[in-house]
Amino acid sequence: MSLLHLPHHDGSPLFVSDEAPALGDTVTVRVRTSAADPVEAVWLRTTYDAEPVFHPTTATAEGEVVWWSAALPVHNPVTRYRFLLVRADGSQEWLTGAGAVAYDLPDAADFRLSAFPSAPDWGRDGVVYQVFPDRFARSAAADERPVPDWALPAAWDEEVVFEGSDPRTPMQLFGGDLDGVTEHLDHVAAVGADVLYTTPVFPGESNHRYNATTFLEVDALLGGSEAYARLSSAVHARGWRILGDLTTNHTGDTHEWFLAAVDDPEDPHRSFYYFEDDGTYACWMGHGTLPKINHANLDARHAMVDGPSSVVGRWLQPPYDVDGWRIDVANMTGRLGAIDVAHDVARTVRATAAALREDPWVIGEHNHDATGDVDGDGWHGTMNYSGFSWPVWSWLRDPASPARAFGRPVPVPRRDGPAVVETFRAWQGTLGWRATASSWNILGSHDSARIRTLVGGDAAVHRVAVGLQFTLPGVPMVFAGDEIGLEGVNGEDARRTMPWDRRDEWDTRTLEAYAGLSALRRAHVALRRGGLRWAHVDADTIAYVREHPDQSVLVVVRRCAGAAFDLPLGDARHLYGSETGGTDLASGTRGLVVPASDGPRVDVWELVTE
Amino acid sequence: MSLLHLPHHDGSPLFVSDEAPALGDTVTVRVRTSAADPVEAVWLRTTYDAEPVFHPTTATAEGEVVWWSAALPVHNPVTRYRFLLVRADGSQEWLTGAGAVAYDLPDAADFRLSAFPSAPDWGRDGVVYQVFPDRFARSAAADERPVPDWALPAAWDEEVVFEGSDPRTPMQLFGGDLDGVTEHLDHVAAVGADVLYTTPVFPGESNHRYNATTFLEVDALLGGSEAYARLSSAVHARGWRILGDLTTNHTGDTHEWFLAAVDDPEDPHRSFYYFEDDGTYACWMGHGTLPKINHANLDARHAMVDGPSSVVGRWLQPPYDVDGWRIDVANMTGRLGAIDVAHDVARTVRATAAALREDPWVIGEHNHDATGDVDGDGWHGTMNYSGFSWPVWSWLRDPASPARAFGRPVPVPRRDGPAVVETFRAWQGTLGWRATASSWNILGSHDSARIRTLVGGDAAVHRVAVGLQFTLPGVPMVFAGDEIGLEGVNGEDARRTMPWDRRDEWDTRTLEAYAGLSALRRAHVALRRGGLRWAHVDADTIAYVREHPDQSVLVVVRRCAGAAFDLPLGDARHLYGSETGGTDLASGTRGLVVPASDGPRVDVWELVTE
Repeated sequence: MSLLHLPHHDGSPLFVSDEAPALGDTVTVRVRTSAADPVEAVWLRTTYDAEPVFHPTTATAEGEVVWWSAALPVHNPVTRYRFLLVRADGSQEWLTGAGAVAYDLPDAADFRLSAFPSAPDWGRDGVVYQVFPDRFARSAAADERPVPDWALPAAWDEEVVFEGSDPRTPMQLFGGDLDGVTEHLDHVAAVGADVLYTTPVFPGESNHRYNATTFLEVDALLGGSEAYARLSSAVHARGWRILGDLTTNHTGDTHEWFLAAVDDPEDPHRSFYYFEDDGTYACWMGHGTLPKINHANLDARHAMVDGPSSVVGRWLQPPYDVDGWRIDVANMTGRLGAIDVAHDVARTVRATAAALREDPWVIGEHNHDATGDVDGDGWHGTMNYSGFSWPVWSWLRDPASPARAFGRPVPVPRRDGPAVVETFRAWQGTLGWRATASSWNILGSHDSARIRTLVGGDAAVHRVAVGLQFTLPGVPMVFAGDEIGLEGVNGEDARRTMPWDRRDEWDTRTLEAYAGLSALRRAHVALRRGGLRWAHVDADTIAYVREHPDQSVLVVVRRCAGAAFDLPLGDARHLYGSETGGTDLASGTRGLVVPASDGPRVDVWELVTE
Repeated sequence: MSLLHLPHHDGSPLFVSDEAPALGDTVTVRVRTSAADPVEAVWLRTTYDAEPVFHPTTATAEGEVVWWSAALPVHNPVTRYRFLLVRADGSQEWLTGAGAVAYDLPDAADFRLSAFPSAPDWGRDGVVYQVFPDRFARSAAADERPVPDWALPAAWDEEVVFEGSDPRTPMQLFGGDLDGVTEHLDHVAAVGADVLYTTPVFPGESNHRYNATTFLEVDALLGGSEAYARLSSAVHARGWRILGDLTTNHTGDTHEWFLAAVDDPEDPHRSFYYFEDDGTYACWMGHGTLPKINHANLDARHAMVDGPSSVVGRWLQPPYDVDGWRIDVANMTGRLGAIDVAHDVARTVRATAAALREDPWVIGEHNHDATGDVDGDGWHGTMNYSGFSWPVWSWLRDPASPARAFGRPVPVPRRDGPAVVETFRAWQGTLGWRATASSWNILGSHDSARIRTLVGGDAAVHRVAVGLQFTLPGVPMVFAGDEIGLEGVNGEDARRTMPWDRRDEWDTRTLEAYAGLSALRRAHVALRRGGLRWAHVDADTIAYVREHPDQSVLVVVRRCAGAAFDLPLGDARHLYGSETGGTDLASGTRGLVVPASDGPRVDVWELVTE
């Protein structure tokens, strides 16, 4: 039986009448079943103040498809629900984000509706481009700036020193600056992105600037606050958005607050940190250069995240007008041992932003399981390494690649399609549809190996990864340089400079793939807002449909050559192929025939329903 | 390959060096693997303030078994962890409470250690006997008491009116009282129980008394507060414990607080409830007779749960000396729409109890998913309908039984062993080992059908259910009457009177099974505190080992006759059989041979390791 015959529900408009309900609203939710996998009855089960409550559904047949509809009262701000399917033989299954299973499972993967405002449309529909300012581009003014004491100046073409233990790694200063970014926005446009996200721009005694010395001004090495305002204006002039990057979890140990705190134990900034009586202090993962902010202290919280004069608030206002924040180490922010005010901090960041801007976007970094930290009134989404990057990496990695694992002591394992889809499903289920769709699909960042390196340098496999990035639920986030095939075995090595003067080294075919997929995503609401049903999964091929009331598309992704297969679908029109070839599909006796194909390649078809 | 060869970890002493660590302690955790399913390397992964951190393990071989040990810092009050297993071919698996899986899964089933004090030993090692006072036994004094206006007096042998819509159901008063319970403690002893749990004893205008009119005195119809003190003394004189039952979620609409609130909108008790301006008020599941307490109001919280003079505190003190509480509707307590102070209430109940008694036990009723409401400093455990009752019910139900589902619109489905074990595993994984072991294994209660009815009246299948109840992790809770084979199609029908004068109707063989299993559990630490490894699962047979450093036992449960199977275990000595027969098992060439057997039956062997 085809996967497409399985009972299905997700949080997209075909299945949920209102993705952004208010508390007290009633939303119609629907399950789709197929005559090929018949279901006798469906019940909606919700939890009402944590008590299970069942509601009946009404069945409507549309050809071979049966839609089961029920009215779901949005009683709690995050209202959880699932479906109980009864088969003709009396057997029962639960349909949750984990799929339909014939045993009784806990609520972790229950569907949910959130009555808290969702991420802004520009975020959910956008394509994010990540710039690491020291490595992206230098304006002419960069040559004039004095090199600070801590820095080791590097020529733009010099190799990055990246072994973790090398003390030069954070000191190597290539001198990229913000006017350099402004000057290269045409390149960002060529990629098809419309949200610019820069890693920190505040001064820090490092090239990454995650160890801020102040949050009151932009690093003079980057051109200062005026250059930031210029960049923001230029971005907005194109109708784009800009996101900052803030270390709410810690400052640098040369930060003005920390220096005051060390200098004088009576200084009010002492309480901004977790000092022990002996002068030691809590810091990020044992790094004394990154003292941890004590968000249980309301003065610290006020200075950092609460209100228009806080750090969070200040940069959201003119002339900087940042449209939101990517919050560094959001998972640890406000958490230390027995202390956990993480949700309070997240809520405050969002409230501060919402009070200052019409439609801000707040993404919390979490390189692991952000379940429970999203859906609410805090982070709109996360950097979805767990739910997107890891399954993609594990499907596409070249076993011989020197790429190092991101945060694990052993390399990314190579896995086959079924395990990869199981991972996608598990994370989409527990993180929830809305949080997944509002989170970032990342192939790599300044913290991980480059995707090109992970796939063993194979450009076609790289383009397969990009195909997944732009066609699965979630917002594509492209780390600058990926689009031209830059390499890097780990996060530090990935921070290579953009070779503006060596265009011959660019992989322009891959750049065209990014541009093509950006345009495809922008033009097709099904790719931005459609549901997700898995259509075919084997070791080397993953196929799925993205469906929206206005439009449906079929995506077939092959990591290598693969056999033909049938899908119970109607005619299709070819929209995109990552490689040459790719045709309209023909209807056969058992539905649509997806022919045997070379690989690696990704193809997207629009399903022609009539 | 035998299930016993699979990688395993759980929260029991063989695998965790300290089940009750303090914050800041380091605990040794171990994984067991087998040479038959070889693993190349094991890493411990914990989350440290929500950030994943890996620790190495050290391998020690013991014959065919390899133990992988690691030091786990208890950094957070609830410290979560899992293991990364690396195979010789480089493939990777995660070992969590969900078992070992070859894909990347979220944290919901991660193992965990709690630095909060655990349930008391007397609770974890005990056997609970539930009495519904109106139906258990009448003392001579009961005949002298006037019948209140609301009640419909019923003779002891009269049938219970149980259809939900019949207004007589809650009014039928059989007149059992507390001295009646005291007079029958020898029967409780004969069952082998040592914790007496009575449903509410406060006055309420119903036979169930979940609609209290006051919490200041015990219902005169039950003999009043003095009779309660006599019962408590008699229980304690036997070295047993007694638990009360409290509706923290609501009162009756004839409660003195509520009457005062209705009478005068300015009365301070008005704020104890959720009144709207129009005089309507929030109540339990739409029942106006059960107005919901507003625990966001600190006066209400003080009166109900906070401190020695609160309801919670008052009855824990002499002369009542209750040893703890079963909290009714704990899942909904403190939750209403956007309001959620449930954890604050639970924490306060426990703190109040801990301040007044050395080792109180607080169990929160939750007929669904209590994950997140246990492990902390609130409820020690729950009434584990989801993780115990439902899988047992679904394995053993007679399809023709008139038993009605508990809280679902469709009957309990009949399922085979694999789905049933999957359910056990899913709930043990997400609820966590300690919470599972501190929760109640329930075959039925005053809220559900009787187990005897569910299994179609088959006494041998009933004894199979009891075997599971007493040998799986968790504390057996026996609803009075189950032990002699009483029937009932739903909770109301299950509230039949104990036929003290009709001993010929008693199923004494089943009573002996309860007594035998109580004694077995008391005598064998492996059954009370041992780990759990599944040994063999097919449609009709479930076998498992409970292992403790001092002792291990094998349990084989058959719902009907089944074939022989081998287990990779040493010699075994027969300890218990629910039916006649059952022998010491012989070692064969491939380990222990469990012979083909009739069923239904349960057998327990001690594993003789030498």
